[in-house]
Amino acid sequence: MAKTPKTLDELFHDTLKDIYFAEKKILATLPKMAKAAQNADLKAAFAEHREQTEGHVERLEKVFGMIDKKPQGKTCAAILGITDEGAEIMEEYEGSPALDAGLIAAAQAVEHYEISRYGTLRTWAEEMGLDDAAELLQETLDEEEATDEKLTEIAEDVVNQEAEAA
Amino acid sequence: MAKTPKTLDELFHDTLKDIYFAEKKILATLPKMAKAAQNADLKAAFAEHREQTEGHVERLEKVFGMIDKKPQGKTCAAILGITDEGAEIMEEYEGSPALDAGLIAAAQAVEHYEISRYGTLRTWAEEMGLDDAAELLQETLDEEEATDEKLTEIAEDVVNQEAEAA
Repeated sequence: MAKTPKTLDELFHDTLKDIYFAEKKILATLPKMAKAAQNADLKAAFAEHREQTEGHVERLEKVFGMIDKKPQGKTCAAILGITDEGAEIMEEYEGSPALDAGLIAAAQAVEHYEISRYGTLRTWAEEMGLDDAAELLQETLDEEEATDEKLTEIAEDVVNQEAEAA
Repeated sequence: MAKTPKTLDELFHDTLKDIYFAEKKILATLPKMAKAAQNADLKAAFAEHREQTEGHVERLEKVFGMIDKKPQGKTCAAILGITDEGAEIMEEYEGSPALDAGLIAAAQAVEHYEISRYGTLRTWAEEMGLDDAAELLQETLDEEEATDEKLTEIAEDVVNQEAEAA
């Protein structure tokens, strides 16, 4: 069956739906991670990132508007797999010294997925001359990168040492 | 049921099994991506990264040896989800101008997953005083980051413009 050739605008729209689904999944997952975390700084970081994520969803809704589309998610197998691994950590490491280190690793896998998606979408938006969309996507990208760095700090400052204690 | 408390060495071992499974999955996926790619530079980049990935598997096998374990994979839901999205791109964008841009986005999602995992494993190895393991993990991390940058260059130099052509 012959297909209609798809160009960058459709790929941009498809990928926007993918990350919109992913952000909603992350919104639902972060409270569970905040509840599971043992370290107070980590708990606070997950709670703060949940607030930020609400803003990421709003920015995506604006970007949908900029390309005259309704905000709509599309099942993102990647984020489902990544968050499944996080759920497995919560289950298998419950009550263990290494739980928080595992939660940080899971959260950083999520952040890196988002960093890759937002970097791609920002570059495509620039290519298509959607400067306002590129700017919004860059703002979220900056926040995802800052979150990733903050998680690294919490891991290196205290959580990894605690994980070694038997 | 009470569980045995798990510490960082077990988390390190579990995560090593996760990325070992992921690297094997990537080894099987890269030839398909090389075959699907339309742009010659992109085809070559995927083929070259497949060669590199064989080296990553060998390094992981050495790291298993350093902690006195046999190399063993553990199903990694994350990489299965991420590569499923790549397969979807190959299917839905076959013959389309935006195919290569979509393949690069899929490959960069894979790279970022690996960057997050190798960064985590390297830091844990340092924390546990496994300096030789940390060094091997850093070498692979450097190669994953270089691959990610190379893919960005190919995208920005030519592939994204081609994707816009209807």
